[in-house]
Amino acid sequence: MTPESAILLIYCPDRKGLVASVTEFLAKNNGNIVSLDQYVDAPKSVFFMRIEWDLTDFAIPKKKVGEYFDTLIGKKFAMNWRLYFSTDTPRMAIYVSKIPHCLFDILARVHTGEWRVKIPLIISNHRDLEPLAEKFAIPYHFVAKTPETKAKSEEREFALLAEHKIDFIVLARYMQILSEKYFENYPNRIINIHHSFLPAFRGAKPYHSAYNRGVKVIGATSHYITPELDEGPIIEQEVVRISHTDSVADLIRKGQDLEKIVLARAIWYHIQHRILVYDNRTVIFS
Amino acid sequence: MTPESAILLIYCPDRKGLVASVTEFLAKNNGNIVSLDQYVDAPKSVFFMRIEWDLTDFAIPKKKVGEYFDTLIGKKFAMNWRLYFSTDTPRMAIYVSKIPHCLFDILARVHTGEWRVKIPLIISNHRDLEPLAEKFAIPYHFVAKTPETKAKSEEREFALLAEHKIDFIVLARYMQILSEKYFENYPNRIINIHHSFLPAFRGAKPYHSAYNRGVKVIGATSHYITPELDEGPIIEQEVVRISHTDSVADLIRKGQDLEKIVLARAIWYHIQHRILVYDNRTVIFS
Amino acid sequence: MTPESAILLIYCPDRKGLVASVTEFLAKNNGNIVSLDQYVDAPKSVFFMRIEWDLTDFAIPKKKVGEYFDTLIGKKFAMNWRLYFSTDTPRMAIYVSKIPHCLFDILARVHTGEWRVKIPLIISNHRDLEPLAEKFAIPYHFVAKTPETKAKSEEREFALLAEHKIDFIVLARYMQILSEKYFENYPNRIINIHHSFLPAFRGAKPYHSAYNRGVKVIGATSHYITPELDEGPIIEQEVVRISHTDSVADLIRKGQDLEKIVLARAIWYHIQHRILVYDNRTVIFS
Amino acid sequence: MTPESAILLIYCPDRKGLVASVTEFLAKNNGNIVSLDQYVDAPKSVFFMRIEWDLTDFAIPKKKVGEYFDTLIGKKFAMNWRLYFSTDTPRMAIYVSKIPHCLFDILARVHTGEWRVKIPLIISNHRDLEPLAEKFAIPYHFVAKTPETKAKSEEREFALLAEHKIDFIVLARYMQILSEKYFENYPNRIINIHHSFLPAFRGAKPYHSAYNRGVKVIGATSHYITPELDEGPIIEQEVVRISHTDSVADLIRKGQDLEKIVLARAIWYHIQHRILVYDNRTVIFS
Repeated sequence: MTPESAILLIYCPDRKGLVASVTEFLAKNNGNIVSLDQYVDAPKSVFFMRIEWDLTDFAIPKKKVGEYFDTLIGKKFAMNWRLYFSTDTPRMAIYVSKIPHCLFDILARVHTGEWRVKIPLIISNHRDLEPLAEKFAIPYHFVAKTPETKAKSEEREFALLAEHKIDFIVLARYMQILSEKYFENYPNRIINIHHSFLPAFRGAKPYHSAYNRGVKVIGATSHYITPELDEGPIIEQEVVRISHTDSVADLIRKGQDLEKIVLARAIWYHIQHRILVYDNRTVIFS
Repeated sequence: MTPESAILLIYCPDRKGLVASVTEFLAKNNGNIVSLDQYVDAPKSVFFMRIEWDLTDFAIPKKKVGEYFDTLIGKKFAMNWRLYFSTDTPRMAIYVSKIPHCLFDILARVHTGEWRVKIPLIISNHRDLEPLAEKFAIPYHFVAKTPETKAKSEEREFALLAEHKIDFIVLARYMQILSEKYFENYPNRIINIHHSFLPAFRGAKPYHSAYNRGVKVIGATSHYITPELDEGPIIEQEVVRISHTDSVADLIRKGQDLEKIVLARAIWYHIQHRILVYDNRTVIFS
Repeated sequence: MTPESAILLIYCPDRKGLVASVTEFLAKNNGNIVSLDQYVDAPKSVFFMRIEWDLTDFAIPKKKVGEYFDTLIGKKFAMNWRLYFSTDTPRMAIYVSKIPHCLFDILARVHTGEWRVKIPLIISNHRDLEPLAEKFAIPYHFVAKTPETKAKSEEREFALLAEHKIDFIVLARYMQILSEKYFENYPNRIINIHHSFLPAFRGAKPYHSAYNRGVKVIGATSHYITPELDEGPIIEQEVVRISHTDSVADLIRKGQDLEKIVLARAIWYHIQHRILVYDNRTVIFS
Repeated sequence: MTPESAILLIYCPDRKGLVASVTEFLAKNNGNIVSLDQYVDAPKSVFFMRIEWDLTDFAIPKKKVGEYFDTLIGKKFAMNWRLYFSTDTPRMAIYVSKIPHCLFDILARVHTGEWRVKIPLIISNHRDLEPLAEKFAIPYHFVAKTPETKAKSEEREFALLAEHKIDFIVLARYMQILSEKYFENYPNRIINIHHSFLPAFRGAKPYHSAYNRGVKVIGATSHYITPELDEGPIIEQEVVRISHTDSVADLIRKGQDLEKIVLARAIWYHIQHRILVYDNRTVIFS
């Protein structure tokens, strides 16, 4: 049995004594560090840290950890911080359209217990994947989207997300552009998979563009979405070699294997609280 | 001892009987196939082929092979074809500016006999790498380039290329844009290395752009140059993973290892006569 | 609609005129080549070829193709050859134990139509994955195996395979060693996935061995099984980087993504009839 | 200008308060952390750390840093530690036999200033690469080796290493096995490059073995040598895909590019003091 741990994600202006202050706070209160990763963006003089410690013998009660940390450390160093507990299970909404491979892969990982995550609902602008969701007993909400109904549809989606206390959203090949309100409500909490190595081949039909350009490598990119299409902070990328013998259909087939792996890695980092976003770049803590 | 072989590169409109006709021509004249690779671009209905055969017992004299082939096969099928002999040594000019790692890598490969190629001269718009060229006894021509002198400088370069009977040019991090006359004189015979996975990060300072975009993978691309900057047919690409901890200096360091490998592979394919260009894409025969 | 095509896989002693003879046979009978790949193992002087042609206008009736080919070409050159038709659907049996990720991935690909293949049955020495098979309505046969019952259990398995006219078997993390009779009955038709880059870490617990050895790269290998454990001809391999921070659990998690991809590629090559085995090595035609 | 920094490499039994103690020591003495990476081997309960800090305003004089650290921190926690300064230039001896590509690559990196390292001498059991060493004005010592002269030859080598105050040795395809005295004198300071992905294909002729086994991926491994051949702690590995069309000569050509890159990365980690060895595994700090 893994004991319960707490995870702090921190960023603040860099200065001397930051690591010492945080680790001393844990040491004095009998917290055993499970993992620590820190990084300084030297050109911008910003300090980033992820620290995870065992709560078993920790002197401060779980409910008070955030308050004490902020009072004793956070305020002093003007830290932006977030606190997570390993026993909390993140609640993930999945958005899909018609293409099933990413959804299938996510369902497999959740079904086999690879991830500690709950899927209270799937939302889709098509009915195609409803039978698949039913096989795994996950509520599937069809929310049609046309240019006319978009605002109203999104209101319904927000209601569903609120009702199910959704922590973050995964766009598993959801072929709709979300309005800005989404980014305001779920900043750095909407993960998308784009089927190219961004920034190459933004937008629609990247495999066709890759074929026409004659590249020798194709890729996939998972990123947090932002109002600028395919410009959000990149979480993970992977590539595979192709050759002139590969047709567009081959690129799609090979690329889909990339997509599901790259999306899965991003979800893994996210639910492990390993990602900090700063200046449209991600820090991925190890 | 590898016996002398002939290599045919062919492309033409696709139709039935092409492979049969070419291979029958060789079989009838006692040519043993060393390697054969063919490819059909189905959407465009174009046939591509590379065939290499042993000349030892071939019935047609070496000097007559092209003429016979064209008369008996090429004309009939409206083939574009080129004929090479394995015993001919391609003559390569290298263009450099100040950055040495690609030049160093090329000199190493030639010096150690990895490639069958001759380097009659190096041309540069700077004097920095002249001592390195001297170590390997390769004539180094400094040809200054300013916007005013460009036309005149290129005339001098063309004279040098002609004088030394240069077959193809390698831009080993040469930081100058060539005029259109170069493409006319050396179509698909000028290989460039660009330090990004094209089409991402075209133009100047791609490592800085990659850093700012926060990609998780960087790349390098070798391609034949065309009048559109960084838009020529791609020969080879390779990538390497990076992380948020990598500074721009780290990207440059890691990227340089990619650049030299990717450029070397392109040169290898070129001197092995394994590349056909069609519609701004390359067919790389195996 | 893709038209029906025929596929020939050939190997024979190398000599002049092989490609010409085969392609002339197709050309004369109005067969349009869809793809052709040939390879000569020069040290052993063996010729290998895969050729696929459109049957639409082919002069020889489908049922007579094999007979005519053998009479006119095959016998003359002492060819080993096999003939396939693109409209035939291969019948695949899956063997599993308790670990689900490879099975899940295969079911996803079949369910979404990525592969043209039929799964008439799943065989397992455990009941754990039966509910998953039921979700996709695939008959699941529990065949217990103990050292005492092994011979009898295999008899039952052979009966099931015969009854369902199985063409090939996929061991999707099946943790049992098959008897020699399997290799005799299904030579080069049993695909296994091993969770290491063979020949490193043969046998049990390769991730633990990889961890203890401190490698920086782990891999997965798909191969046809032979009587020597983990020594069969390799079809495909892939690797992923790891670091000292990865625990054995991390290796297993990262490795499972490799396993399913590497197994899927092998199945793809197999059902496309792209694999020839010779001297314990595979020729994978492109 | 990068300011001078100090680097501490530490390992010791894991316990609470380690990071706090080390970082507090720096903070109290006005040392600004440039980078910090720590890792706990949980199964073995061992703590590892690399910490680098700016010496500009550090309160303790450079010559006293080690003494103060040991008195105040190291002894208390039973730390194994080593202290380095960024302004010291490591002195590297290169051993070669006849194969030049790794030596060439190292010379290129040193010549172009990629590495902060000095090469006071090259030692070889052949004269072949002496002209190359001369081009770069590096003293080349021919030390013949036969089974009879081995002991005496090694004595001469040790004298040369001592005379030139060598810090570490790089075996750049040196085809001789060193005696145990080498490991005693230079523990974890002799870097070898082996041309396979260890533990596969140990010993001689790994490319031939890889060809015969029919692998689809070849690799290279850099490691510190130990008395057991090819069993030392692995520093870095890399692979490249191959296919059935690649001959042994192709494997050698493709593999040599891996070898030089993988060896160069290992040297880079070593001279950056990023490597700790424990239990025949390496911790590579980022």
